[in-house]
Amino acid sequence: MVKNFYFKIEKKIDGFLGRAGSFSTPHGDIQTPAFATVGTKATIKGLTIDQIKEINPEIFLANTYHLYFNPGEEIIKKAGGLHDFSQWNGPIMTDSGGFQAFSLGAAFGENISKIAKDDSGFSQIALNKTKGGDCATCELGIDKRLAKITENGVEFRSYKDGSKHLFTPEKSMQIQYKLGADILFAFDECTSPQATYEYQKEAIDRTHRWAVRSLNEHKKLQKLKDSKKNNQALFGIVQGGRYEDLRKESAKFIGKMDFEGFGIGGSFDKDDMDKAVRVVNEILPENKPRHLLGIGEPMDLFMGVENGVDFFDCVAPSRMGRHGGIHTKNGRINIKNAKYKEDFSPLDEDCGCYACKNYTKAYINHLQREKEVLGGILATIHNLYFVVNLVKNIRQSILDENFFKFKKDFLGKYYKKN
Amino acid sequence: MVKNFYFKIEKKIDGFLGRAGSFSTPHGDIQTPAFATVGTKATIKGLTIDQIKEINPEIFLANTYHLYFNPGEEIIKKAGGLHDFSQWNGPIMTDSGGFQAFSLGAAFGENISKIAKDDSGFSQIALNKTKGGDCATCELGIDKRLAKITENGVEFRSYKDGSKHLFTPEKSMQIQYKLGADILFAFDECTSPQATYEYQKEAIDRTHRWAVRSLNEHKKLQKLKDSKKNNQALFGIVQGGRYEDLRKESAKFIGKMDFEGFGIGGSFDKDDMDKAVRVVNEILPENKPRHLLGIGEPMDLFMGVENGVDFFDCVAPSRMGRHGGIHTKNGRINIKNAKYKEDFSPLDEDCGCYACKNYTKAYINHLQREKEVLGGILATIHNLYFVVNLVKNIRQSILDENFFKFKKDFLGKYYKKN
Repeated sequence: MVKNFYFKIEKKIDGFLGRAGSFSTPHGDIQTPAFATVGTKATIKGLTIDQIKEINPEIFLANTYHLYFNPGEEIIKKAGGLHDFSQWNGPIMTDSGGFQAFSLGAAFGENISKIAKDDSGFSQIALNKTKGGDCATCELGIDKRLAKITENGVEFRSYKDGSKHLFTPEKSMQIQYKLGADILFAFDECTSPQATYEYQKEAIDRTHRWAVRSLNEHKKLQKLKDSKKNNQALFGIVQGGRYEDLRKESAKFIGKMDFEGFGIGGSFDKDDMDKAVRVVNEILPENKPRHLLGIGEPMDLFMGVENGVDFFDCVAPSRMGRHGGIHTKNGRINIKNAKYKEDFSPLDEDCGCYACKNYTKAYINHLQREKEVLGGILATIHNLYFVVNLVKNIRQSILDENFFKFKKDFLGKYYKKN
Repeated sequence: MVKNFYFKIEKKIDGFLGRAGSFSTPHGDIQTPAFATVGTKATIKGLTIDQIKEINPEIFLANTYHLYFNPGEEIIKKAGGLHDFSQWNGPIMTDSGGFQAFSLGAAFGENISKIAKDDSGFSQIALNKTKGGDCATCELGIDKRLAKITENGVEFRSYKDGSKHLFTPEKSMQIQYKLGADILFAFDECTSPQATYEYQKEAIDRTHRWAVRSLNEHKKLQKLKDSKKNNQALFGIVQGGRYEDLRKESAKFIGKMDFEGFGIGGSFDKDDMDKAVRVVNEILPENKPRHLLGIGEPMDLFMGVENGVDFFDCVAPSRMGRHGGIHTKNGRINIKNAKYKEDFSPLDEDCGCYACKNYTKAYINHLQREKEVLGGILATIHNLYFVVNLVKNIRQSILDENFFKFKKDFLGKYYKKN
């Protein structure tokens, strides 16, 4: 059997879990830690492939749930897969579709799961509220909906037309197989951050059974005659919510399975996300990559890397940019602020992105105040460039044995109270 | 005095008014006939400067009315003018702001002009309805409003906040002077296509007096200490509506004035636009360029060139593209049509635009159906490339003494009933 995926650690942060490495895929090597730009519907809002190439992300994440509805996995398969469809020829990952099925699926029938009765919103949505992180779902501005969870999978209604659908671990694998990304995720249950211990325990047990079914189906699909033979890697997802013992239990169970890497999903308390990530990564096998799902705030990126995270993804940089929020080395600014009307300097001095090389704050202020699309595009280009390169610079600081100094300098400037 | 503008005719269509030439400006030579891409607010919706450069229009048109409100001509002057503000370093033209003041300005006061009582919508709006052409105003989806026309100018209300404003010929020149385009337009009155002969006559007389005031003010401004000394050319505008004798009268009056070129504005009947353009261009001096305002439909471009037009502008290619309408050599298609869901060919075979070189109909169909911004951007890029290059190819056919064959072949395919 050809081995298409290989994770190599180049350097560790002395005495910590963090490491710099690389993960080889059929569409190129990913230098880790790496930030995956999110293109929910196989497009980063408004950006052409050349603009994305100039940002130079190591990997691109697309959402299975949305692509299942439109244009549908069959059309993407006919196009030759997501790479040919979107023209992004670097590595691509797809999520399992589960999170959106839970959070966007409207309730139906009598037998509503506990998750639907919970009053607090869904896992990552709540997480985002506290952490400033973000996820594709939040972007749609849709709060929690009801979905029916059974041993078989998740029954839900389309967010578009209310039609009934069923996602099972097998179905998720079949869709992702057809979408044709390099890295896929196992089907898991996202619980509410306020879920009781009992429910959370029940949910991770189910998630573990679904992980087994996901892996079995994945292996079967990778051997199909029309497959490209093991050119897709499956990552298992660790859950457990805010409960340390459940996180550990989940990491042990998932970590022992034959996945090519791991996702850390679900919800955390703001104040001990670092601890939760650390206890999980202490258990997960060192020789496989780990993805902290849906996190992209600068301080959380440092926290994640320090505690052994290799991949991140988040829609916050693009969504925030479209609403005027701009990352700069001196913290976040709102480009729509009137004080930038006559500021003819770039968004961030010394930034090498297309927006900063070509345009002024005054012009982008004008575009955003006038709701001109180019204003959101330039802000998106800048913010993605900022975050992608921040993670690349964090990686370099590990190689240079300089991580903690870089962290202190960067965060000191970024979060400095003026 | 330095002569910054020079029109040179390279070749004429034998026995017709049409010609291929060039118009030199401080920001480069414009090969004519040329299609000006419209960036109402100093941006072509969603396109970066590099994307515009790849389309390679000869000239760019921005709207004075919109820029007067936001960000304001003072800020653009401080930025160094429209070229520095927008980063478009080729030739730029601005309109006078009059058309939008009439059509977007809400009525106030007692003394409402005849134009406001007219029941038929404003000149170019109505023209667009019949001819498939377009204008920046129509793009905003706002139908006619009332404005008060006096000898002094036009009093109107802001389309944004209802505040009162006054445009006079002098004010229009002062704003355009500060915006800093290469080609400016005199302040004129756009009448309704259904205006009575009496009103139309009254209006062109006023337009002629305003033309004198515009030219005087322009000359004064070009001599100012802080000006770049005659680096802006002023075009006068011929009006006259549907009345041939008034068109002729206006062409005679305006044509004798010391303008660097001419605009043909206002309304026509669909069936005799060609005749109206011809009678005007027979009178206007041959050695100066002529701009047919707000026209961009393929058949009208051929008609205009044949009858001596050197410049066109129109927002239709971008607006139509954002709604799914795509120019192809075989006519217009709607890319949102379900039949393109699995069509993995480019929008138009053999087209050299960025969208056609990189993307399939299926992908753009997906983006547009999902209301993803990139779908509109790719369609805009394609349509602008199509129209800009159509006019370039028309120019080449004149140089090759091949105009009528090219016209017949092109229009035969484009308007062929399938």
